[in-house]
Amino acid sequence: MLALVYDPATRSESIRSDYPTPTPLKTEALVQVRMAGICRTDLEILAGYMDFEGVMGHEFVGTVVEGPQKWKNKRVVAEINCVCEKCDMCTSGLSSHCRNRTVLGIDRREGVFAEYLTVPIRNLHELPDNVSDIEGVFVEPLSAAFQVVRQVDVDRMENVVVLGDGRLGQLIARVLKMHPGRLVLVGKHAEKLEAAEKQGIQTAHSDQFAPRGEADLVVDATGTPSGLELAMRTVRPRGTIILKSTFTEPAQLDLTPLVVNEVTVIGSRCGAFHEAIRALGSPPGSPDHVDVSALVSKRFALTEGLLALEAAARSENLKVLLDVAN
Amino acid sequence: MLALVYDPATRSESIRSDYPTPTPLKTEALVQVRMAGICRTDLEILAGYMDFEGVMGHEFVGTVVEGPQKWKNKRVVAEINCVCEKCDMCTSGLSSHCRNRTVLGIDRREGVFAEYLTVPIRNLHELPDNVSDIEGVFVEPLSAAFQVVRQVDVDRMENVVVLGDGRLGQLIARVLKMHPGRLVLVGKHAEKLEAAEKQGIQTAHSDQFAPRGEADLVVDATGTPSGLELAMRTVRPRGTIILKSTFTEPAQLDLTPLVVNEVTVIGSRCGAFHEAIRALGSPPGSPDHVDVSALVSKRFALTEGLLALEAAARSENLKVLLDVAN
Repeated sequence: MLALVYDPATRSESIRSDYPTPTPLKTEALVQVRMAGICRTDLEILAGYMDFEGVMGHEFVGTVVEGPQKWKNKRVVAEINCVCEKCDMCTSGLSSHCRNRTVLGIDRREGVFAEYLTVPIRNLHELPDNVSDIEGVFVEPLSAAFQVVRQVDVDRMENVVVLGDGRLGQLIARVLKMHPGRLVLVGKHAEKLEAAEKQGIQTAHSDQFAPRGEADLVVDATGTPSGLELAMRTVRPRGTIILKSTFTEPAQLDLTPLVVNEVTVIGSRCGAFHEAIRALGSPPGSPDHVDVSALVSKRFALTEGLLALEAAARSENLKVLLDVAN
Repeated sequence: MLALVYDPATRSESIRSDYPTPTPLKTEALVQVRMAGICRTDLEILAGYMDFEGVMGHEFVGTVVEGPQKWKNKRVVAEINCVCEKCDMCTSGLSSHCRNRTVLGIDRREGVFAEYLTVPIRNLHELPDNVSDIEGVFVEPLSAAFQVVRQVDVDRMENVVVLGDGRLGQLIARVLKMHPGRLVLVGKHAEKLEAAEKQGIQTAHSDQFAPRGEADLVVDATGTPSGLELAMRTVRPRGTIILKSTFTEPAQLDLTPLVVNEVTVIGSRCGAFHEAIRALGSPPGSPDHVDVSALVSKRFALTEGLLALEAAARSENLKVLLDVAN
């Protein structure tokens, strides 16, 4: 099958036409990929993150072609953590933190930038007809955005700032907009900020943004160490920072403001798919709807996957999609 | 008066015999210092922390010599944050985070390594007779230790680790010992660990300690950036790290584990004096009592203040005291 594969030995990515089509275990489904999305984590993998090897990618919509009868021909998305169901995390209800997990296209498990993948049946979610393939690609990152409102009681936060106008920051701002409280999205790219403003989100260019140590909640989705430093200057004493940014390299950081101001920092990763599917499927214009239409910058065929990765790395682009079987 | 003074211009500390005795404002008391303690923050001031200038020190017991009649001749301790009572933090009940605060011996306010100091009357706490001068010097750091159990629901934590067997780590372990849950104090100094073991605290030498990502709560009181890295390897996914360490220099840190494991990090500083006074004054041997007797390593006269600072900087020593008016 066709696949976009990363090889850590040569530190290079390539399109392979002869990659073996996987065979599902009894507990797995074989899924034909319809469409996939490129995430910042994919770009970090190109820089050596997780020492990943194999088919890249984790955001996708596909069709089940082999598996239990009830899943056959269903259009699906899938949770990316493949878990053991046995460790202390799994048995205590924290299976997204499974000690033995593999992760689609991130950690010791083939990903979705290919014609086919196998995935545990327990990971599948059927996509309703009112969620398009394009919208479906956003289920995984949007569920990561919803995780923010699961981790803190956002309704009690009067003054909320999201740092980073990229793919994830855009989605987080759309989720936080559903809550009361004054929200500002801070970013560096006029066009990206404009996309958020069209959704009724107040924005500020980082050149004009003066951190005042007054925000109740700051979400750092910049993907840079300087984001956390700006967050520490933006949050109020005893306020909360949600940290979404991961970096491939250690960063030079002064965390003294966290201690002096008794700030709470909460690391945040994946979230619940059903909330994202519900928000994408809600009627457009309704308060529960998340509109991702303006977030697609480019579409490529899988054969053009290397160009797609390059496009995703350019700061002017938001989401870059791969049309795999469309 | 006699005073131990830091001069940032020359980056040097000195004993001055001609330092002007301060005059209290109407809202202040003049306090004669009886005994003072040296804290790690004092040592950081010697390295340039806060650009502090003037009389050093913030841990002390004294006697009110000028002030309102009800305070005259009272033996007292004093909260170190001197606040404006007007800013958004003060009016919202977070006066320890006052935007305009000065801090005894740390931030734009003369400290306690002197024969006299002035301090706002609202900061005073009378020391009961059953708390000795030596114990009283521990009120401020012990209240910082009690802050940990104010910030998290420790009674729900089954597996608690304190990193750092220094002055603050010792006090935090003594406070956490009052709660259920398995507690381990991890440190590098056999003698310091022994002092904790005599209080019934389980300890582990850091050479033997294997972090397993299983602790519900980790308190980092190491005072080093490597403490946070060890904390990240010790805490379980979705667990909590209380960060007590401040550093004068930015450190090279990889915070990716916080995000991936969705860890909560809570900065922690000062606490409530009344809890510390109550614990020090409780009958020895009672479960509410905190025993600090084994934590005093050395005592010096104020005239020997420079030797005292040197002693406090040596890793084998716990608390170093200055006998000022005893």
